[in-house]
Amino acid sequence: MSGEVSTKKGGVLSMGPHTLQIPTELFSLNRQRLVNSLREKITDALVLLQGGEEVPFYDTDITYNVFRQESYFMWAFGVIEAECYGAIDVKTGESYLFIPRHPEEYAVWMGPLAQIHDFSNKYGIANVYYVDELKTVLEKLNRAKILTLKGLNTDSGLTAKPASFDGIDKFSVDEAILFPVIANLRVYKTEHEIRVIKYVVAVSSYAHRQVMKFIKPGNYEYQGEAKFLNACYEKGGCRHASYTCICGSGVNGAILHYGHAGCPNASPIKNGDICLFDMGGNYFGYAADITCTFPANGKFSADQKMIYEAVLTATLAVHKACKPGVSWVDMHVLANKTMLEELKKGGLLQGDVNEMFEAGLGAIFQPHGLGHFMGLDVHDVGGYLSDQPARPTKVGLNKLRTARVLEKGMVLTIEPGCYFIDPLINKALEDQKLNKFLVPGVIERFRKFGGVRIEDDVLVTENGMEDLTKVPRSVKDIENWMSGNLDESTFLDSDKLFAW
Amino acid sequence: MSGEVSTKKGGVLSMGPHTLQIPTELFSLNRQRLVNSLREKITDALVLLQGGEEVPFYDTDITYNVFRQESYFMWAFGVIEAECYGAIDVKTGESYLFIPRHPEEYAVWMGPLAQIHDFSNKYGIANVYYVDELKTVLEKLNRAKILTLKGLNTDSGLTAKPASFDGIDKFSVDEAILFPVIANLRVYKTEHEIRVIKYVVAVSSYAHRQVMKFIKPGNYEYQGEAKFLNACYEKGGCRHASYTCICGSGVNGAILHYGHAGCPNASPIKNGDICLFDMGGNYFGYAADITCTFPANGKFSADQKMIYEAVLTATLAVHKACKPGVSWVDMHVLANKTMLEELKKGGLLQGDVNEMFEAGLGAIFQPHGLGHFMGLDVHDVGGYLSDQPARPTKVGLNKLRTARVLEKGMVLTIEPGCYFIDPLINKALEDQKLNKFLVPGVIERFRKFGGVRIEDDVLVTENGMEDLTKVPRSVKDIENWMSGNLDESTFLDSDKLFAW
Repeated sequence: MSGEVSTKKGGVLSMGPHTLQIPTELFSLNRQRLVNSLREKITDALVLLQGGEEVPFYDTDITYNVFRQESYFMWAFGVIEAECYGAIDVKTGESYLFIPRHPEEYAVWMGPLAQIHDFSNKYGIANVYYVDELKTVLEKLNRAKILTLKGLNTDSGLTAKPASFDGIDKFSVDEAILFPVIANLRVYKTEHEIRVIKYVVAVSSYAHRQVMKFIKPGNYEYQGEAKFLNACYEKGGCRHASYTCICGSGVNGAILHYGHAGCPNASPIKNGDICLFDMGGNYFGYAADITCTFPANGKFSADQKMIYEAVLTATLAVHKACKPGVSWVDMHVLANKTMLEELKKGGLLQGDVNEMFEAGLGAIFQPHGLGHFMGLDVHDVGGYLSDQPARPTKVGLNKLRTARVLEKGMVLTIEPGCYFIDPLINKALEDQKLNKFLVPGVIERFRKFGGVRIEDDVLVTENGMEDLTKVPRSVKDIENWMSGNLDESTFLDSDKLFAW
Repeated sequence: MSGEVSTKKGGVLSMGPHTLQIPTELFSLNRQRLVNSLREKITDALVLLQGGEEVPFYDTDITYNVFRQESYFMWAFGVIEAECYGAIDVKTGESYLFIPRHPEEYAVWMGPLAQIHDFSNKYGIANVYYVDELKTVLEKLNRAKILTLKGLNTDSGLTAKPASFDGIDKFSVDEAILFPVIANLRVYKTEHEIRVIKYVVAVSSYAHRQVMKFIKPGNYEYQGEAKFLNACYEKGGCRHASYTCICGSGVNGAILHYGHAGCPNASPIKNGDICLFDMGGNYFGYAADITCTFPANGKFSADQKMIYEAVLTATLAVHKACKPGVSWVDMHVLANKTMLEELKKGGLLQGDVNEMFEAGLGAIFQPHGLGHFMGLDVHDVGGYLSDQPARPTKVGLNKLRTARVLEKGMVLTIEPGCYFIDPLINKALEDQKLNKFLVPGVIERFRKFGGVRIEDDVLVTENGMEDLTKVPRSVKDIENWMSGNLDESTFLDSDKLFAW
């Protein structure tokens, strides 16, 4: 045994030749990176990860949704089936996969019983066993520690569930070492992962473009969602969206998480509405997260153009500044101040922009952070780790999903927005520290405006960033695209990641 | 207070004027029926149901899927929002709805804070409170018993979770009375419910027809799924499918629950394949469940025609026999024997059909039951209740999801099928009680055939049944439909339930 993780050649994950072929080396490389990092802390140890399980729909015999793998397990093993475990021997680098042993009847309902060698070939892992052999195999490997995953998800407040099995109490288990190491590794995307992310962003961009062409006043918002999901799946093989589609028209665009069960994208789109559609496909776990904002009737009004371009100016300022070494907090501040400056030019605000930012006016118009890491989770992990900058406490910055300094290989969303949210506008109008910056007569004109968000998915490169999103962004391009005067070839997939 | 449930006029559930308008009377009528039935057993009591909660996607801040209401709660209250409770006073018939009290910040992310009167108007329930008032309100109502829901789902083996809240231990709770009453009521569909089921079956029929026109050899199976989901949602407002789409082509058609995460409808469809597509939309909880089987290239081969017509003959025999008073077990036997007879005519089987059925040959070719109740659950509840016929023990009948005698107002699927499942064929060939009926040379020809299932959604009427499914079913109609020689008007929505 070498110190390398198993390099047995595996298959590919794919939804057909017109979709991206993901080599299983993506995952063995992640395991190698994990082992390399862990060896700085411990060698006589086994990593043990538990894959996801099916979630029943209440007490019925259907599931809440088609099974999707838990992200840490996916990152390390790339296995799409439920109820597996995976182990990695830190000392030798050898990987072990444990699959459920199904009864014979399973073949009738679920397909031919997968054999050990099928899994071994598919996932490129030499050592595949049944889950009921887990304890025996771990005993034989006889390492001093088993490292399981326990740590806080700083976006949800929930805790990753450490691997567990009958008999684990017989082993010496450490829950602390693994989490910060693996969470931090997930922040830096490998070339393999960047390829997948580029693909799912390209597919989602394509789908957004179709939606923009399709939507007309009179449509219902959810018809845009239906179009998007169809384009992602039928063309790009993305069975799942990465999150609930947000399709807000008019005033609904100011509801940040519109689209949930209580507000199910069920309003009619009216002439004169601006549409804020935030949707992203998912390809073998990897997420896209794109927001397009466009006028329902294809033509921006003067007010819509002004607000849209205020946000776009903020976007472009961040695109220009974004590179290794800059702080994400500074990028947020840059975006906010740029937008406030533009709103001032547009006549909504008055006074000194730095003063209004310090007073917290940025968070009135954009209550959310500039963006977030993106990867196997749409809000990807690693935003706040103990050896990284802590969450800022200042209002306007405390919603940021990370305060880290940018580094090459990070993938983030850049998503400034400007919303007219009644309770926040009212709060600002009543607050002496804020109301002096508002031009009330003008603000009132925007009460039912809704919102604008421009959300791109970007990769931090050696000297700057690459915008992976391929949708019309300028007012002119959007209007031309929606009226059929901008060619699809403008958005050519220069990486040739998909065959259509 | 009268003995009637509250009849405050509520709103409608709808996804726009082109979709079905569901009056909230559907649900108040269900509550009235529940109260009427319970009063035969107890009057000094409150029914307490707990609605569903969001399910997080592992430890992340997204959910596993858009929230969908738990079915018993939906049946009684029609509420689409999460984290509610509902109570019904058996004595007075009065209904009470309890909604979560959200913090002010909720308005920024999720939309305007719903007020008590909003819920009251939307759902036609006069008494709406916050969940944190639940204990106080129940104390005030001061009934001798609180009836909660606990009972076995005989399809899943799971148990309905009784309502629970902080302080429920202070009340006298009965978990036994409610379940059999409400489960049995759900078996009989009201006129309101039948309208919704007709709608969702019509929408799903439309979507299946689009898929049959779209599919060509060279497509991937999931592209049919994508088409189906899009048609249901974009046209019919069905955001969810009622279960994971099964899109098996060729040999995959013999995997009964194909389409799950491990077999994700990801095979290319080949010329000469027969396609078995089992998919159903969902409209405000109500399910459709339809299977269409058709040749990928639009033209049945002789073997495909023979197997298909064997199954269709079984279907039509059941359609003809199905009426109040007949036992579902007898319908299953009728379908099985009819199909075996046809397979004998086709040269696959030899010997006496009654003997082969008794020997268990029916379950080799169709390992599943004839069908199931359908309603708010795709496999709807009430199949086996204590005062109804018990599950048969005989092989071939023990998979039946109910053994009840048909009655007016029941909605069921009728879904005979014929599959060539390797392990079952092998088992039959090795079994002396079975192999004498098989014509081995002919059977071998069908090894890679896949399967045929014809699944209709039917309503038991006064004197027979009504097939709600509107898809081409005969070989001739399917071929004509797929080649564009059968008009859409053939499948006209005679009930005018939708406006397209």
